[in-house]
Amino acid sequence: MSSCSSDLAPLLGGVANSSAAASYICDQFTDVGFAIDNTYLLFSAYLVFSMQLGFAMLCAGSVRAKNTMNIMLTNVIDAAAGGLFYYLFGFAFAFGGPSNGFIGKHFFGLKEVPQPSFDYSNFLYQWAFAIAAAGITSGSIAERTQFVAYLIYSSFLTGFVYPVVSHWFWSGDGWAAAGRNAGESLLFKSGVIDFAGSGVVHMVGGIAGLWGALIEGPRIGRFDHAGRSVALRGHSATLVVLGTFLLWFGWYGFNPGSFNTIFKTYGPSGSIHGQWSAVGRTAVTTTLAGCTAALTTLFGKRLQTGHWNVVDVCNGLLGGFAAITSGCSVVDPWAALICGFVSAWVLIGFNKLAATLKFDDPLEAAQLHGGCGAWGIIFTALFAREKYVNEVYPGRQGRPYGLFMGGGGRLLAAHIVQILVITGWVSCTMGPLFFALHKLGLLRISSEDEMAGMDLTRHGGFAYVYHDEDPSLGDGSPSGGFMVKSSAVRVEPRTTPAAATSQV
Amino acid sequence: MSSCSSDLAPLLGGVANSSAAASYICDQFTDVGFAIDNTYLLFSAYLVFSMQLGFAMLCAGSVRAKNTMNIMLTNVIDAAAGGLFYYLFGFAFAFGGPSNGFIGKHFFGLKEVPQPSFDYSNFLYQWAFAIAAAGITSGSIAERTQFVAYLIYSSFLTGFVYPVVSHWFWSGDGWAAAGRNAGESLLFKSGVIDFAGSGVVHMVGGIAGLWGALIEGPRIGRFDHAGRSVALRGHSATLVVLGTFLLWFGWYGFNPGSFNTIFKTYGPSGSIHGQWSAVGRTAVTTTLAGCTAALTTLFGKRLQTGHWNVVDVCNGLLGGFAAITSGCSVVDPWAALICGFVSAWVLIGFNKLAATLKFDDPLEAAQLHGGCGAWGIIFTALFAREKYVNEVYPGRQGRPYGLFMGGGGRLLAAHIVQILVITGWVSCTMGPLFFALHKLGLLRISSEDEMAGMDLTRHGGFAYVYHDEDPSLGDGSPSGGFMVKSSAVRVEPRTTPAAATSQV
Amino acid sequence: MSSCSSDLAPLLGGVANSSAAASYICDQFTDVGFAIDNTYLLFSAYLVFSMQLGFAMLCAGSVRAKNTMNIMLTNVIDAAAGGLFYYLFGFAFAFGGPSNGFIGKHFFGLKEVPQPSFDYSNFLYQWAFAIAAAGITSGSIAERTQFVAYLIYSSFLTGFVYPVVSHWFWSGDGWAAAGRNAGESLLFKSGVIDFAGSGVVHMVGGIAGLWGALIEGPRIGRFDHAGRSVALRGHSATLVVLGTFLLWFGWYGFNPGSFNTIFKTYGPSGSIHGQWSAVGRTAVTTTLAGCTAALTTLFGKRLQTGHWNVVDVCNGLLGGFAAITSGCSVVDPWAALICGFVSAWVLIGFNKLAATLKFDDPLEAAQLHGGCGAWGIIFTALFAREKYVNEVYPGRQGRPYGLFMGGGGRLLAAHIVQILVITGWVSCTMGPLFFALHKLGLLRISSEDEMAGMDLTRHGGFAYVYHDEDPSLGDGSPSGGFMVKSSAVRVEPRTTPAAATSQV
Repeated sequence: MSSCSSDLAPLLGGVANSSAAASYICDQFTDVGFAIDNTYLLFSAYLVFSMQLGFAMLCAGSVRAKNTMNIMLTNVIDAAAGGLFYYLFGFAFAFGGPSNGFIGKHFFGLKEVPQPSFDYSNFLYQWAFAIAAAGITSGSIAERTQFVAYLIYSSFLTGFVYPVVSHWFWSGDGWAAAGRNAGESLLFKSGVIDFAGSGVVHMVGGIAGLWGALIEGPRIGRFDHAGRSVALRGHSATLVVLGTFLLWFGWYGFNPGSFNTIFKTYGPSGSIHGQWSAVGRTAVTTTLAGCTAALTTLFGKRLQTGHWNVVDVCNGLLGGFAAITSGCSVVDPWAALICGFVSAWVLIGFNKLAATLKFDDPLEAAQLHGGCGAWGIIFTALFAREKYVNEVYPGRQGRPYGLFMGGGGRLLAAHIVQILVITGWVSCTMGPLFFALHKLGLLRISSEDEMAGMDLTRHGGFAYVYHDEDPSLGDGSPSGGFMVKSSAVRVEPRTTPAAATSQV
Repeated sequence: MSSCSSDLAPLLGGVANSSAAASYICDQFTDVGFAIDNTYLLFSAYLVFSMQLGFAMLCAGSVRAKNTMNIMLTNVIDAAAGGLFYYLFGFAFAFGGPSNGFIGKHFFGLKEVPQPSFDYSNFLYQWAFAIAAAGITSGSIAERTQFVAYLIYSSFLTGFVYPVVSHWFWSGDGWAAAGRNAGESLLFKSGVIDFAGSGVVHMVGGIAGLWGALIEGPRIGRFDHAGRSVALRGHSATLVVLGTFLLWFGWYGFNPGSFNTIFKTYGPSGSIHGQWSAVGRTAVTTTLAGCTAALTTLFGKRLQTGHWNVVDVCNGLLGGFAAITSGCSVVDPWAALICGFVSAWVLIGFNKLAATLKFDDPLEAAQLHGGCGAWGIIFTALFAREKYVNEVYPGRQGRPYGLFMGGGGRLLAAHIVQILVITGWVSCTMGPLFFALHKLGLLRISSEDEMAGMDLTRHGGFAYVYHDEDPSLGDGSPSGGFMVKSSAVRVEPRTTPAAATSQV
Repeated sequence: MSSCSSDLAPLLGGVANSSAAASYICDQFTDVGFAIDNTYLLFSAYLVFSMQLGFAMLCAGSVRAKNTMNIMLTNVIDAAAGGLFYYLFGFAFAFGGPSNGFIGKHFFGLKEVPQPSFDYSNFLYQWAFAIAAAGITSGSIAERTQFVAYLIYSSFLTGFVYPVVSHWFWSGDGWAAAGRNAGESLLFKSGVIDFAGSGVVHMVGGIAGLWGALIEGPRIGRFDHAGRSVALRGHSATLVVLGTFLLWFGWYGFNPGSFNTIFKTYGPSGSIHGQWSAVGRTAVTTTLAGCTAALTTLFGKRLQTGHWNVVDVCNGLLGGFAAITSGCSVVDPWAALICGFVSAWVLIGFNKLAATLKFDDPLEAAQLHGGCGAWGIIFTALFAREKYVNEVYPGRQGRPYGLFMGGGGRLLAAHIVQILVITGWVSCTMGPLFFALHKLGLLRISSEDEMAGMDLTRHGGFAYVYHDEDPSLGDGSPSGGFMVKSSAVRVEPRTTPAAATSQV
């Protein structure tokens, strides 16, 4: 758009003030662009935010009823604490260029915002991403973690660990970004194409969860005395499906929204070729990868277990989304089918491995977001198409693209580096943090509390009360009804918090 | 927009290169149009997709708890298999013109996309429609259908039966389309105005469900020995309300979104009259029809049953939406009140008829989508307003409109033809399919399985586990709690799928 | 935009028809504005509508299971009856200028719509607001109110009480509006800045609920014989969290959407400064206020009760949103932190007061929407920033702004007047209405019905049926299962509604 005036002015030669006329007209188009692009980005941000609701429901349904209040609280607090920390410094660490390439240093508390490339809408969009990473991790350590540990790791992840990674790969200053500022050299002359964050978001959340779950160990009863895997089923498949569909819905903000803008031509004006079309294509590749992964999982697990299992299909679907997130904007729809197909087997394989190793992740989050995320990063390096890469990451002639598309191995090399540095960085930050919490006795709850459930012991009661306790208040079916909690009706605490039964 | 350059160039006479200047400016407006329209269409598509979640929750809540996993899986698979099939050939059958008017033949696997009138966003939007049709049918045959039958009919419906119907009425090549390509003659000089698909989507889904439910017969216990209707209540009114509101939310993508574009003037530029206003009016007529139907149902059922029943009100509301879907863009808001009022009685009447005929449709889908959908088609032919018809389907002087609005009977004739051909086409394709499945023993589950519930026998377990089985793991209320399934804690299958208890 | 032609024409001097050329180009920009702004407003309206779903789920989860059907029906009917009444006269009362400043008098039944400043999208957006107010009130009187009373007060509130208030503060003719039509004098030379309705929506709903709950008195068992507060816990924390997140999601339509348009520059064209940026900032202040309130509540209640309580955190979050709603567009992000922090304590304080006074509001709606809403109005008068006030409410040089920002006390004076007149108006209309219903015996249900639950006695049955009654239909766990209702399977009424057990 910036070239509009210089293009138009000569064409208006003969006009009294052709330069001013051209500027006037072009400035209006600039305004139009701001209005459209902000509309597009804000509504995309709202969609991404709705994923937090999806996570909350998916997590709630995947844990046992006795821990429902706990896991939902962690999801709400993720969003809330994330809002505060990302405002205070997370956004600054992630996008506050110019920087040294490792960590940003402007925009603390949204100072200097708005400016041409960073308006409030960018902050909101990125905040919604940041809280997603912490949400992923919460699944891995569900049903056995102290709430105070949750507060600590979540703040650290959202406020520091994740922003640094996003700076590396998404900021114009980031040392490994494919869209690095003009003049800066690209990693392997390529940079990392992690468009919407299979690595930056999903692997970060998954690896963090891996360390948390490893250090805590499995839930009581998850493996029997003979060491066999025992399913501790979540309490509501309905919530799992609700959460999965909400995540699917929100992913349309996550992936296509990562363009940030939609009013941009590819080539000359007036043709159908522009970012609007790439945005649509991204929504399509996302859809197809998820669909294929879901179907593959349906039949794959049917062969394996003899059941048509909706919860497995939901996880397979989400794995497909996590995988396509990296390359969604630079691959063809047919390639998305391959991405989803392989992704389903990656998840099945990692789940088998986890069972063998007695690794317990109640949401399969490490396997799904870590494993399928890593596959997605490789996939992009294999199938990224030259034309799309040059449209989405313009201005670098002859840059590498997918190995299988004839683009050479340099993109793959960069992507292997991405997997390694993310694994390393998250392991070196979150691993010690979880270990320190463990050593301080702040990580895992007591086995009594674990067996009784955290809701009763820490969160003021069971999540569900379907039946009044007192028959005098009853609904007429005192014996057959399903009473959940013996203190469904309780006297509220007044002035003696010390008398409360829970600590921390 | 295409006339922009030819209009503007003469006005710029005196400029050195007036034609190039006009082109330059007009091309920018073309870009703006692409950006706005794709934003509009994509977010509409996301809303329509959210209806699939609405369907899943509505269906789940409307069936008994023991079949919840089953029905939710069908909804997830609808979307996933629909994605694959609609990508491979459904979209091609539906919109792949030029065609013979019966079935499209381009765009297989999205080849030749994008092109001026078909971008990726169009595919995504139409996919979300296609899966809605299959979702409707799944309600009719709930709680007694083998999953493999579901896979077969769903693929056939989404991949072939539905795309053909949408080609007839919505493609520029369709023999009965109101918006047929210029130069082609219109059915009864009118064509069928089924704007968002009371016929194309709702009747198709409803008639398919009618045949499925008829061939399967009622659920066990649905009619007692004396032949009286026995309500088999769904297991959660909360899920019904959740699903209904989500469908309402999504309908704002379904109806107003069917314009596909919003940046289009009606008459000269610079006035308030344009597609943006028609889009808003469509949202309003949709809202008012649903509201009126809900209120009519509230009082109608109160008189009939003595209760204020929220589930009935939800169904009434959805019937109003299904009815207005055909004419939403071409009728006045006041007419929408009539549409909704009649729709409520249509549904009540068809439900009475179904009970009399011992027809069992757990979701009332055939009655609601088939019956109210058919009423909506008639309604449009009676109340379509001349001005709106000419704005929404431009370029045909003196075309017919609503009979009661003075537009003659030709639109009504075309709409009666629509009802007949949809009924005929769906009956001739889906009827034999369901019958063949029935004869092959693939349609209905065994009565043992039906009584035990499909979740336990086919889907790996009950959807809900509110209480741990093992007292040693318990939450302290071993007797009063509500244990759902005796294998809440089970050892996972390892290597012997043959040992699994379910087949198919 | 209106000045576009007059600005551009002289610049095109030398062109044959510079005035026509300028008009032509500028008219296209006008069209663009209509397309963008209607897209923006319609999708915002859809988001606000989704709050009705959020309310339904929040209310359902916050009441006991036996009253779930009742409260959800009131939420559905709110939307439906609200649609009809707001179409017939509510919108006319609210925005039908020119008026006498007290109540509007045009647009009945959407006559004269569309016109330049009122298109169908405006109606839809305002309807979604109107039903929110009635939804708030329904929470206060939950679990003990006759359905017929609900129908009456809801219609009166949505159709008359609320529209009048919105006319005062939001219509260009309103006597207290900050954005009053040019030439009209402003209240205290300032007018009331209630941008998205902390007063107009939240206080109105809260005060109405206050009177309803006061006149009805507390639920049976809410205070024990010694007068101590007894928690009557809602039946599902999951639904509370679901509803809260949906409200959060919808609030992005409520607050940023209240700009109505997004394509508007602040200052000269071509810069980054425009309504798009203010819209984004509003989304950010909204987010931060809610996040801060949630965190403050988390720790505040932890100190008070010893628990980490997710339901309390949800209410705290919503209180923060209710408070920031007034000033969201005119304060800085850092001020939003203050707003949210104080809001949490306001809610905690009002809840303590309510317990002391034996005031029972099952959803804390009066405390939350009334109390935090009132705080939000004060907050705006303290922290509104000069620059933002002049951008959002332009055209009045030297108008007052926040007291703490150096803007004097006149805005505060106007805002105190707002609190007083809203309290007075709602008390003088809704108070007598609830009292009359009470005297006529139409307000509260019988104590037998209250103990049995309204669903069984009035709404045709319990909301949940997790277990079949008849063992012959059973799922194999007849004794341990959780049977909810003794008539899970019942014969449907046929022709004798008189035999039905419920009245009214």
